[in-house]
Amino acid sequence: MNRFSQAAHKAAAMSVSPEGLPNVLREDVCLPAALIRQQALEENIRWMQRYADARGVSLAPQGKTTMTPAIFRQQQAAGAWAIGVGNVWQAQAAITAGIRRVLMPNQLVGQANMRLAAGLKQAYPEVDFLCCVDELANARALSAFFAARQQKLDVLVELGLPNGRCGCRSAEEALALAQAVSELPGLRLRGLETYEGVLHGDGARAQVEALLSGAAKVACRMARYVEEEFILTGAGSVWYDVVCNVWLAAEMPPRCRIVLRPGCYITLDHGIYREAQSELLNRDRVAAAMSGGLQPALELAALVQSVPEKTLAVVNFGKRDAAFDAGLPQPIAHYRAGRPLSLRSNELHSVAIMDQHAILQKAPESDIQVGDLLIFGTSHPCLTFDKWRKLLLVDENYNVLEEWATAF
Amino acid sequence: MNRFSQAAHKAAAMSVSPEGLPNVLREDVCLPAALIRQQALEENIRWMQRYADARGVSLAPQGKTTMTPAIFRQQQAAGAWAIGVGNVWQAQAAITAGIRRVLMPNQLVGQANMRLAAGLKQAYPEVDFLCCVDELANARALSAFFAARQQKLDVLVELGLPNGRCGCRSAEEALALAQAVSELPGLRLRGLETYEGVLHGDGARAQVEALLSGAAKVACRMARYVEEEFILTGAGSVWYDVVCNVWLAAEMPPRCRIVLRPGCYITLDHGIYREAQSELLNRDRVAAAMSGGLQPALELAALVQSVPEKTLAVVNFGKRDAAFDAGLPQPIAHYRAGRPLSLRSNELHSVAIMDQHAILQKAPESDIQVGDLLIFGTSHPCLTFDKWRKLLLVDENYNVLEEWATAF
Repeated sequence: MNRFSQAAHKAAAMSVSPEGLPNVLREDVCLPAALIRQQALEENIRWMQRYADARGVSLAPQGKTTMTPAIFRQQQAAGAWAIGVGNVWQAQAAITAGIRRVLMPNQLVGQANMRLAAGLKQAYPEVDFLCCVDELANARALSAFFAARQQKLDVLVELGLPNGRCGCRSAEEALALAQAVSELPGLRLRGLETYEGVLHGDGARAQVEALLSGAAKVACRMARYVEEEFILTGAGSVWYDVVCNVWLAAEMPPRCRIVLRPGCYITLDHGIYREAQSELLNRDRVAAAMSGGLQPALELAALVQSVPEKTLAVVNFGKRDAAFDAGLPQPIAHYRAGRPLSLRSNELHSVAIMDQHAILQKAPESDIQVGDLLIFGTSHPCLTFDKWRKLLLVDENYNVLEEWATAF
Repeated sequence: MNRFSQAAHKAAAMSVSPEGLPNVLREDVCLPAALIRQQALEENIRWMQRYADARGVSLAPQGKTTMTPAIFRQQQAAGAWAIGVGNVWQAQAAITAGIRRVLMPNQLVGQANMRLAAGLKQAYPEVDFLCCVDELANARALSAFFAARQQKLDVLVELGLPNGRCGCRSAEEALALAQAVSELPGLRLRGLETYEGVLHGDGARAQVEALLSGAAKVACRMARYVEEEFILTGAGSVWYDVVCNVWLAAEMPPRCRIVLRPGCYITLDHGIYREAQSELLNRDRVAAAMSGGLQPALELAALVQSVPEKTLAVVNFGKRDAAFDAGLPQPIAHYRAGRPLSLRSNELHSVAIMDQHAILQKAPESDIQVGDLLIFGTSHPCLTFDKWRKLLLVDENYNVLEEWATAF
């Protein structure tokens, strides 16, 4: 909390007020800044863990969303079975932060990436690290690499779908690969992974259900190649109820652990993920019957830097600071000199974003002044998180409780 | 160049080969990685400085593009009059990196941002820091703040245009503000700033020329409020020739310094900025007559992680790693086990990008295998730079010469 941080970066300058904690509304911190609302974050962590517990499944939150070790640790402490990552340097960030099981639902390719994984396995033998394979040549390369080091790499076979992303395209392909993996030295087959989140739009639910039913059938046929418990994992933040419904009703391999991997639930958002969760609550009786619920926990605080026309305001954040691929950040609260002002719907609306600026259309009569502080909600949390090296953890009064480092 | 960096981050793991330098193609580094080609970067720095020298104007490269102190220092050493930044924490990064003049063509708003600026002025009294004002209330707030600290803030009046971004909307407004600034304590008026880069599309050139002619006229009328040399600044990486043409031909204030602020020229790109530079070379005789020229200097090295269908390959980078707002990164070279393979046009083409994956359509007969290394060119360098904490400076053989930290 030094006024001048050693390494210059965003949210670096912060002064502590005489009252104790720095406060965002009182402008004790440089703006723009990315804020995490503590209460909402903690409720989200608890809620999703309670949901998984209620369904009797395991939770491996996608840590890649936040890449914030402080959040990984909270998720693990709340009961998460693993933390999900997108690649091996993200696995390194999680493992060095104290995470005991890391699930990488992705292929491990490249000599340097394999070396990094091998080094982590050697340095942290107690950590359970799992990744995916979807073709024989890659399985053979991994086998040769890890067998030569007297190590065993734990892998899941990935099942994909036509025109999708990674993954075997048929049950037969997946089963042949599972058999090959089970016979290769240096590899240990642990189960089956799929990702239904690539499906969206009209008719997506039926496709999701078909993919998941197919995955359950493949899992049963694959069980003979897995010695210990069988891991069956899917689910992003959009279809996790459907994943539970299908898999809990299906025939399963013996000793099967179902693992959900939602990521964006952690902060929800004010856009696509809030909408997805609202749809989920409408269709899923388990979620609807639970107390509490997911809440937006990620906000952007920024300042009006120019009001050059009656109907136009320019705010001091841009593509450098926030996601813009699933809707622009929109203002949700308005403050002046620390005091809240009213913000009517349609009074102020983001219409364009540049690298360092956001352009807001304003109602002509709207009282927006240069220096006013606006709080923005965003859509798609991942791409806001990765713009920040430090996040400010705030309480309900926007006091800054902690600075959290990200590990992008 | 430790194999395991203390702080886990992208491009963290790197092994030095027996031959000496780590090599990207030999996979001594974790991929994906962002690469800066040293030769192209140095040529770009020299070329743009030579262009400014040839036109008899000053250069203030927009450092916000790269936020890479090692590049700022090279630009300054090559003759840049200042380094441009987008906000005050970027100014802090530049000043602490040894930059002697920082031009912030943007408004300074917010108590914490003002405190940071004041602290920098106090700690680095020899540094020349300039920012913009576009309205009286902000000028008064800055005046009160800096006068109370017995400091003088150097400001330029910003001239904008209707439906544009920041800036006064008329000559009269700009002149009234200049007069007010000249009479306010704690402020020193240094000149006029405008940004023609918000203009693009059909008819943009005529609008650009009109804005610049108007700015020259305002500058002449504003000259009486400026004691020392008059700074007149404009120009992004698209219209810098037109800025020179108009201003060098116009009537100017006495002792006028014209300052260009191109940013993306530093690495050019394989997309919108290469196209803009190509158009500039077609219309500008000064640039066309110069030897050498701007070259793409920023590349992304990534690995094929899955080839699940005959016509589809998945590569291990995504929106987390590269700009995607001005065209997707496209493959420009193909290597296997360190050796170049041919890459025919239309053989391989990015068609979609997700957070951690890029989807490539491939010709059915194309020999693309899991583990193959692809070099990608990107479009819009700014939004690729800000995804990386470390950039790898490489020579023409992709040996890694240095790791450069970014300061986002």
